[in-house]
Amino acid sequence: MNVTGATLIRGQWSPGTGPALHAVNPATGQSLPGDFHESGPEQVEVACRAAAEAAPAYRAVPREQRASFLEAIADEIDALGDVLTERVVAETALPQGRAAGERGRTVNQLRLFASVVRDGDYLGRRHDTALPDRQPLPRPDLRLTHVPVGPVAVFGASNFPLAFSVAGGDTASALAAGCPVVVKAHPAHPGVSELVAGAVQRAAERTGMPEGVFSMLHGGAEVGQALVVDPRIRAVGFTGSRGGGLALVEAGQRREVPIPVYAEMSSVNPVVVLPGALADPGALAREFAGSLVKEAGQYCTNPGLVFVPTGDDGDAFVDASAAELAQSPAQVMLTPAIAQACAQGVQAWRAVEGVEVVAAGEVTDATATPTLVTTDLDVFRREQGLSAEVFGPAGLVVRYPSVEELVDVLAGIEGQLTATVHGTVQDHDAAQRVLPVLEDRAGRVLWGGWPTGVEVATAMVHGGPFPATSAPATTSVGTLAIARFLRPVSYQNLPEELLPVELR
Amino acid sequence: MNVTGATLIRGQWSPGTGPALHAVNPATGQSLPGDFHESGPEQVEVACRAAAEAAPAYRAVPREQRASFLEAIADEIDALGDVLTERVVAETALPQGRAAGERGRTVNQLRLFASVVRDGDYLGRRHDTALPDRQPLPRPDLRLTHVPVGPVAVFGASNFPLAFSVAGGDTASALAAGCPVVVKAHPAHPGVSELVAGAVQRAAERTGMPEGVFSMLHGGAEVGQALVVDPRIRAVGFTGSRGGGLALVEAGQRREVPIPVYAEMSSVNPVVVLPGALADPGALAREFAGSLVKEAGQYCTNPGLVFVPTGDDGDAFVDASAAELAQSPAQVMLTPAIAQACAQGVQAWRAVEGVEVVAAGEVTDATATPTLVTTDLDVFRREQGLSAEVFGPAGLVVRYPSVEELVDVLAGIEGQLTATVHGTVQDHDAAQRVLPVLEDRAGRVLWGGWPTGVEVATAMVHGGPFPATSAPATTSVGTLAIARFLRPVSYQNLPEELLPVELR
Repeated sequence: MNVTGATLIRGQWSPGTGPALHAVNPATGQSLPGDFHESGPEQVEVACRAAAEAAPAYRAVPREQRASFLEAIADEIDALGDVLTERVVAETALPQGRAAGERGRTVNQLRLFASVVRDGDYLGRRHDTALPDRQPLPRPDLRLTHVPVGPVAVFGASNFPLAFSVAGGDTASALAAGCPVVVKAHPAHPGVSELVAGAVQRAAERTGMPEGVFSMLHGGAEVGQALVVDPRIRAVGFTGSRGGGLALVEAGQRREVPIPVYAEMSSVNPVVVLPGALADPGALAREFAGSLVKEAGQYCTNPGLVFVPTGDDGDAFVDASAAELAQSPAQVMLTPAIAQACAQGVQAWRAVEGVEVVAAGEVTDATATPTLVTTDLDVFRREQGLSAEVFGPAGLVVRYPSVEELVDVLAGIEGQLTATVHGTVQDHDAAQRVLPVLEDRAGRVLWGGWPTGVEVATAMVHGGPFPATSAPATTSVGTLAIARFLRPVSYQNLPEELLPVELR
Repeated sequence: MNVTGATLIRGQWSPGTGPALHAVNPATGQSLPGDFHESGPEQVEVACRAAAEAAPAYRAVPREQRASFLEAIADEIDALGDVLTERVVAETALPQGRAAGERGRTVNQLRLFASVVRDGDYLGRRHDTALPDRQPLPRPDLRLTHVPVGPVAVFGASNFPLAFSVAGGDTASALAAGCPVVVKAHPAHPGVSELVAGAVQRAAERTGMPEGVFSMLHGGAEVGQALVVDPRIRAVGFTGSRGGGLALVEAGQRREVPIPVYAEMSSVNPVVVLPGALADPGALAREFAGSLVKEAGQYCTNPGLVFVPTGDDGDAFVDASAAELAQSPAQVMLTPAIAQACAQGVQAWRAVEGVEVVAAGEVTDATATPTLVTTDLDVFRREQGLSAEVFGPAGLVVRYPSVEELVDVLAGIEGQLTATVHGTVQDHDAAQRVLPVLEDRAGRVLWGGWPTGVEVATAMVHGGPFPATSAPATTSVGTLAIARFLRPVSYQNLPEELLPVELR
């Protein structure tokens, strides 16, 4: 179970041939075990070639066996025990409880996709029987199923070292679809990545999967670009910053054969507080503060933008939120770069005329305490920069004078992963006006509660209009995520014996 | 029923404010009635604004009423009678029988989408019930449905003046999805476009659809670009040339908010003849020639590339095909530009060393007789240009010495709309090796028959890997085409009263 720093290609571990890369504990700045190196260009190439060579064999693996592979990965991850969660804590500064919870989500996700594969409904099979006597022309026999697109590149996400990294949602859904996967581990948790890659490899061996069905590379943006432009890669799954995502989307489009890059990028997850929800402003403020600062606010679904009515009840909510946040201790952020970006985002808010600071957080090179700023609807409408995501424990409250003016502003906001409305029965009329506008701007609409906490389920959408994602018709969480790595094919008049197994 | 040359915007007819545009009979070069003008930039803008304003009302129209709208369009098109088919023949030089048949396909397509809308399965609804007692965290109530993406721009196709133009497949599927449509009519059949737009408008009025649900503009590439970059447009449907499609895809990606451009572009539709299929080479050659020259070969699914075994039987097939094609009369092409491109394509084939002409067709400014050329697998592998689409009655036969070498070449061909295999029971072993490779390269796989003739059905895929289309996970023909204009949204803990009607 030692972390060595190696790269996994075609079932073999070997040292990366690129520059050194260091595993660091963000809480202490100390180096962690493992002699990591980025993967060299020839290693990227070999991993992609191995995936392409494995593709025909892997797509032919019976569904039952593919499901067993996914379950074996889950079992192997579970078997890593505390070694894994301790390394998560060491590399990310996320609390132990979160590490254990995220491991649970990761293995449940793999097992859920195993059940999806077994069930077979995801194939979306259709059949039009032949009508040989139809006039003026006979109808042929047509059968449709969905086939795997081919090798998929997956990028580990910094903020979900297990659930959206080496064997996270993108990998689980791509493997479930029947696509070989090449992962680029996130450089902020290379040791966790190696441990999980080992689990995948053992599962692949144990269940007799073709060599090359899974590889894991180390590296940064350069390795990522090389991976996306490799001609053997057919689709990409990415969760991260807007800048990183857009660069990969562009690389995917510039190729001789363009490919879809499914990038989940950024979202401020607007929350609309309707007047009736302010009966107990203190209670609502406690919930809001809890969601905003959870794990230093490092969630894609962090509620970074809250619309609150003008007036005394709204004032009370803002005051109570500020008071809650002022008591919130400093938390270590995932990386110094993330802390720095958070500090810059907060600074940009504070520089806007008409923005008032109500909880003045501090962001150091490593840690952050929460910031809360407020402004009015006019300033928010005028200053486009205010709606940019600040990744971390930082929120913006916008005070609105009327639902009518609010709806007008909501219609103009960028695409979001989530949009939440708080209200009571007395707010239903207002909600009827607000909800259709939010539905047009978001992938998930909540009534009450807070957007952090993304259920891995059949009816989940973790997606949304650009720039929340690059592909609004898809989700990266939940069973529907498998659709990103499938393509429909129609078979006309094929004899039973020559039809794909799934259509016989 | 007179053709005036006007543009339809927000339910009103008005003259285009751009340059004049002429309706021409390609068979005679004569002008046809109608004082056509391209739409000016402000007309494009107003049509898109009208579509955006109509979007919330149109998406709220009950499904039953939306289905009636689609059926009313079909009825109004039928009611145009001979006026419509005569104008099709005059503007396209397609035969009367084809015009009537295409009208039948168009109205059937609209009625099929009406049934899809009524049925509601296309919404892909999912429900995870709340689990309030689940440990460690309760599960919320989650319901998923698919919502319309918003205003869609549709480009009329030159080669399907009815079935893939103003009220063709893209328009039918977008309107079925609940999206307002702005059509750019193809400049090669502006009069047909006006007649059909009138039918749509009458149907919209008759069924009480919101103003702006449908507009039709006239123009060329410039108007098309303006339409795609209009910020209110959320998706685009296009069928046409690779150059035209790629330019629109790029325009869609360059926008501040990128949008999907569903472009169906080009395909040579490879046909593999296995040895057993050559028992009667003359019969097979007659079928091939019939498919290749049908309506001057102006089908996206024209069988432009045929792989035939070396040896006597294959020679006999080539000779018989050449003889069939030599007897085929000259046919008028859709436009002089298409005739010119066909001539250039044929010329490029003939210029390649190792390519032999077996039927020397002639392409004039307006008409074409069929061309057939042959070469061997080595030349085909070496000369990438040979696999480019030549739109028109022109085919390339590649002779292959063994299935093994053939499979190697097939694995390297570009993405295709269709791939066809001819064989008998004795060829099943070879077919088992060929079919998986073709499945990876095409959207529809046929056993026997010819790819021309695309059934509008539930199990049809008219799509395929790039460059056949820009979006291999989708189809532009068949009921699955509706998925291009939908986006999943998840609703968390919404009270019954506030849920979308479809989820209550």
